[in-house]
Amino acid sequence: MSKAKTSSKGLPPVPVAPRPTESLNEERKAPSFPVREMTYFLDNGREAAEFKDKVMAQLERDPLWRMDNTPDLSLLQLRERTLAKFGNIINFMESEPAPVFWQRMAVLSVVDPAFWTRLGVHMGLFLGAVRGQATSEQLDYWVGKGAMNLGGMVGCFGMTELGHGSNVAGMETTATFDEENDEFVIHTPTVTATKWWIGGAAHSATHCAVYAQLFVKGVRHGVKTFVVPLRDPRTYNLLPGVTIGDIGKKMGRDGIDNGWIQFSYVRIPRSYMLMKHTKVTRAGEVIEPPMAQLAYGALIMGRVSMVVDSANMSKKALTIAIRYAAVRRQFGDSPAALETKLLDYPIHQYRLLPLLAQTFALNFTGIEMTKLYQNLMQRIDNASDGAGLAETIELLKETHATAAGLKAFGTWNCVNTIEQCRQSLGGHGYSSYTGLSNMYTDFVVQCTWEGDNTILTLQCGRYLVSTLRDHRKGKPLAKNVQYLTRALTGIKQFPGRTARDIIQVDALREAWAAVAASAVARATAEFEKALAKGLNKDQAYEQCSTLRLLCARLHCYGYLVNRFTDAIQRAPASLQPALTNLCLLYATYTIQENSGEFLQAGFFDSEQLAVIREAMNDLLAIVRKDAVPLVDAFNYTDYVINSPLGRYDGNVYEAYFNLVKTNNPKHNDIPYFDSVIKPLLTRTSEPLEAPQLDF
Amino acid sequence: MSKAKTSSKGLPPVPVAPRPTESLNEERKAPSFPVREMTYFLDNGREAAEFKDKVMAQLERDPLWRMDNTPDLSLLQLRERTLAKFGNIINFMESEPAPVFWQRMAVLSVVDPAFWTRLGVHMGLFLGAVRGQATSEQLDYWVGKGAMNLGGMVGCFGMTELGHGSNVAGMETTATFDEENDEFVIHTPTVTATKWWIGGAAHSATHCAVYAQLFVKGVRHGVKTFVVPLRDPRTYNLLPGVTIGDIGKKMGRDGIDNGWIQFSYVRIPRSYMLMKHTKVTRAGEVIEPPMAQLAYGALIMGRVSMVVDSANMSKKALTIAIRYAAVRRQFGDSPAALETKLLDYPIHQYRLLPLLAQTFALNFTGIEMTKLYQNLMQRIDNASDGAGLAETIELLKETHATAAGLKAFGTWNCVNTIEQCRQSLGGHGYSSYTGLSNMYTDFVVQCTWEGDNTILTLQCGRYLVSTLRDHRKGKPLAKNVQYLTRALTGIKQFPGRTARDIIQVDALREAWAAVAASAVARATAEFEKALAKGLNKDQAYEQCSTLRLLCARLHCYGYLVNRFTDAIQRAPASLQPALTNLCLLYATYTIQENSGEFLQAGFFDSEQLAVIREAMNDLLAIVRKDAVPLVDAFNYTDYVINSPLGRYDGNVYEAYFNLVKTNNPKHNDIPYFDSVIKPLLTRTSEPLEAPQLDF
Repeated sequence: MSKAKTSSKGLPPVPVAPRPTESLNEERKAPSFPVREMTYFLDNGREAAEFKDKVMAQLERDPLWRMDNTPDLSLLQLRERTLAKFGNIINFMESEPAPVFWQRMAVLSVVDPAFWTRLGVHMGLFLGAVRGQATSEQLDYWVGKGAMNLGGMVGCFGMTELGHGSNVAGMETTATFDEENDEFVIHTPTVTATKWWIGGAAHSATHCAVYAQLFVKGVRHGVKTFVVPLRDPRTYNLLPGVTIGDIGKKMGRDGIDNGWIQFSYVRIPRSYMLMKHTKVTRAGEVIEPPMAQLAYGALIMGRVSMVVDSANMSKKALTIAIRYAAVRRQFGDSPAALETKLLDYPIHQYRLLPLLAQTFALNFTGIEMTKLYQNLMQRIDNASDGAGLAETIELLKETHATAAGLKAFGTWNCVNTIEQCRQSLGGHGYSSYTGLSNMYTDFVVQCTWEGDNTILTLQCGRYLVSTLRDHRKGKPLAKNVQYLTRALTGIKQFPGRTARDIIQVDALREAWAAVAASAVARATAEFEKALAKGLNKDQAYEQCSTLRLLCARLHCYGYLVNRFTDAIQRAPASLQPALTNLCLLYATYTIQENSGEFLQAGFFDSEQLAVIREAMNDLLAIVRKDAVPLVDAFNYTDYVINSPLGRYDGNVYEAYFNLVKTNNPKHNDIPYFDSVIKPLLTRTSEPLEAPQLDF
Repeated sequence: MSKAKTSSKGLPPVPVAPRPTESLNEERKAPSFPVREMTYFLDNGREAAEFKDKVMAQLERDPLWRMDNTPDLSLLQLRERTLAKFGNIINFMESEPAPVFWQRMAVLSVVDPAFWTRLGVHMGLFLGAVRGQATSEQLDYWVGKGAMNLGGMVGCFGMTELGHGSNVAGMETTATFDEENDEFVIHTPTVTATKWWIGGAAHSATHCAVYAQLFVKGVRHGVKTFVVPLRDPRTYNLLPGVTIGDIGKKMGRDGIDNGWIQFSYVRIPRSYMLMKHTKVTRAGEVIEPPMAQLAYGALIMGRVSMVVDSANMSKKALTIAIRYAAVRRQFGDSPAALETKLLDYPIHQYRLLPLLAQTFALNFTGIEMTKLYQNLMQRIDNASDGAGLAETIELLKETHATAAGLKAFGTWNCVNTIEQCRQSLGGHGYSSYTGLSNMYTDFVVQCTWEGDNTILTLQCGRYLVSTLRDHRKGKPLAKNVQYLTRALTGIKQFPGRTARDIIQVDALREAWAAVAASAVARATAEFEKALAKGLNKDQAYEQCSTLRLLCARLHCYGYLVNRFTDAIQRAPASLQPALTNLCLLYATYTIQENSGEFLQAGFFDSEQLAVIREAMNDLLAIVRKDAVPLVDAFNYTDYVINSPLGRYDGNVYEAYFNLVKTNNPKHNDIPYFDSVIKPLLTRTSEPLEAPQLDF
């Protein structure tokens, strides 16, 4: 047994670490690609990138858009700021062409997600409903009332109810036609029918697009949309029969004033029902539209913009995590050695760099889907004129399913990226001043709204199963599901066995195509087994729901890999090597994470997977060298990043210390010292006294 | 092409849903097990369960412990409440035996995590440091000053620095021995040396256990612990040389006042250094202890309590999610059908029920680890007296590694459970009044503090690799790593092929043992390959870090499966069938989720996995029937659950509506109507005016 020993020799001196700014700048000495070119490519062109620069510079200078002190603002202060920005941004909305304003919005969403939502409620949801569902006369009327430029009216969107979210068809609010007065009576019959989560209702809306069950002559005709005035725009008093309350504190996005609304027999003119599709005549005749499906086009826009937002938010999170990892040092090879940068640890690379690769994949996916959506909308506009309707409906179905799957896939993965980045900051990730905690609580709602992610993923899976079944009967496959032909021919093992054969963009793309096709085939088999047991279609789809979920997820992986490889092909030569490494990292990482699927499909065996795993480790080391230039290429200014740990100059500790110091009161102000602390410090513990009993 | 059609037939009436309370109560009609018996078993005995009942009842009646209005409290209000509770709870601390008070704390942690932390900082960290590192004379001294009963002093724990967290040995704060005055000089030499995240420092502590580099006669002797007074307990003014600031807003747990501390040449008597281990004599002689390792025992307690807390928080989250899923209805088989309960959807079962099974596994793991820890502490106490030292050190190493791995595994899985439960509530999960959003933001810090989860998991992996290597050289295996013998003999495929063979507790336990052993063997091979390349041990461990992470994770799965099967064996017969179903569900689900590992290890082939997958689906349907009784058995009162959606009676909508209504101001109070909304409503858009130019 060892003994206590006297020590006079002691330990070597702790080495002096280089300054944080030096640690970061040395990362920028030799990027393997031209950084600014990469920015142009990611932003889909130089023009868009330069416009983004301008927007960021404008915002940074405008005191209304100050963001560094938001952690300490109260709910009401946040809401006031949101609405003040609202007033400020309309000028751009009026003066900029729509695609340019969309680009502005993409920046705003990264700067202030709550503002983005509040504006989106009016512009995307309320106006979207009016534009998509009003007759042209009705549209003119509401535009004349100020719907477009927010003079005289601010809209909100009354779809969800306390008891009804995803199942829109089941909602309870009623709109009963009163033939005598040519009016609709809007009513909330139960507590669960209360309109709930209505963004902007609590404090800021004058009108609401209300979804309600249409009743005419005692007969229900399903859910339709009605514009219902809520408040007098002069006094802002609630109109008769309208009750509104505040939903209050949420996990995040407190800048948006969600509210609840109850209607007690509120009367509106018949013409306030939006009648582009279903019409109710003066005599109470209900005329149903021929092509109700086309109305779903509007849903797609929100989902596409969430894929874009997922990419953008991931960029912001990774910029913080990767720059910090290039500055932060922890443990060394010996007590005398300089501590190692986090970014130099293989495990830290493994935590962050696949997410970086995924962010590139999401970025390219967002660009492609935006194009797809614009193309689709144009065709729908033409289709209403009669041309190529059947084909347009096929395209709509495919885009709808893909957008549903990718909205879920993108937002779930973005949430994971944010949280992984947050945890990678260690304790500092828990501070509200380092940016990622609020980013998480703001972003995570995207997994739920505009279609719960699980339900959307299942929808996508349903589309895949039914597409494969149709294809078996001879129906041709749309472009993005061509890979399903593999489900007919069966999956063969990949012949190559060495890294040279396997670690190729084409081989890995084929791997994802094969395994996704295999999963769709398995889901389809389970579906058909259930049908054979005598279940109806809906029941059979329920029975295969875990496999539907799985195959939709694998479909999305394959989709992202494909968008990445497409992007490499159209990229400037100077960017291709760096992009190829990222793409290979993404593919090898995701294959490794889903290795069970590849083995079960019989596409790779365990030795091939070992090759992939080793290649992934090599790729991590390669991509690590470019890690800081790659996040620099995302091109968010310090103002947008809004985290001292993600600063461009790397001076993280001083900036963080100063921010915390500035935003918090001095020690002396302890309002509860006398009432709470002092009694604690001066307490003495004495047992309860009691009179003596002599029996 | 179809044409517009007039519709007078319309849709069938919407069926009237049963009342929410009925929907929930019907779930309780025929539990397959005695619910109260299950509570006793989960709580490790009837006595403990009944004590928990009492604690819950006491708290609910005490106005200090009101929790339903916390979402709207400000940071300062939350902190004031935390400290008021602090004063209130000391009475119990003084009067109850330690194990009983621990049980009380386990309830408190579920009711108010921030309070639990604030008390834990004093009781666990500060007092733990003093108890574990003070000589008996020093301990008497600090107890006399009020350390135990909080009369006159409130402690905090000064370990982490702005620039140093996990690497304690690298911290920068200095404690320099001034021989002339027989004092230490405590100093913060740089910004990064600022003590950071110090719980209680901002507003409530009078003393700090400061970790600092000991310098004697110009020589560094490593990090030691010093008690440093911070504030005058009478005036609460900061003492000379002490600067303190507030860390401010965090992601959660705002009730605890984390602060930062800087020392400017602060002098303390030599005897304020805690000298149970290292001693500094009056003459400046430094005497190092023989057995520094034993000090690590103290770290284990925090980690064990986090495993227990992970189980308890998972129980709370699942009670909310599962009760709500038995009430909430969504979509029906047809427009005329009653909507289906969420809990009846296979996909919803798949989302929640494996997490329920996991919670049981974590619960039993927490019980076992608490026992293990108490046993270890007893042996360490004896060991200091000289008996069985080597064996105790082996046990310490095993417990330390297992506790590290399970702290990470438990907290990560609990975070996932909370977030999955939150998302399963749909939009309502985003409200601060439904409980899960704050549960997430409060809990997630546990993945970082007292050892970053990634680092802890790697530590556990390192232990497994080195244990396997030692075992190869003939060293016997400790109890919980006996399974590693399989790594020597090689893994053979499981012979059974039918559900009858495979879906057995013993078979699945063997499956986890085999695949964990296989992963440890792979990590060890990668480690040895790196050694063979000439890397040193530390570098080789870095090289195999992704596999170390993997094998530690699989080790933890196996550990939980084993604790679950142990529990079944000692359970009353009436509970065994229900517990067995849960255990089989846990094992089949986790095998399915990690199917790649089982295929790669060659333990199961894809056909066997298909059998497991099908069995898992069957088990979901079986466990679903007991789902509500199972969460009832967790036995948390509505007060503890603190979510209208998780109420015992199922009256979720009314309770939620009323809570939101009560906690938020009426519509009329819009403080920014005149300043912000009115200008928006009355705005007119006019182009900029400009003078005409005639050139």
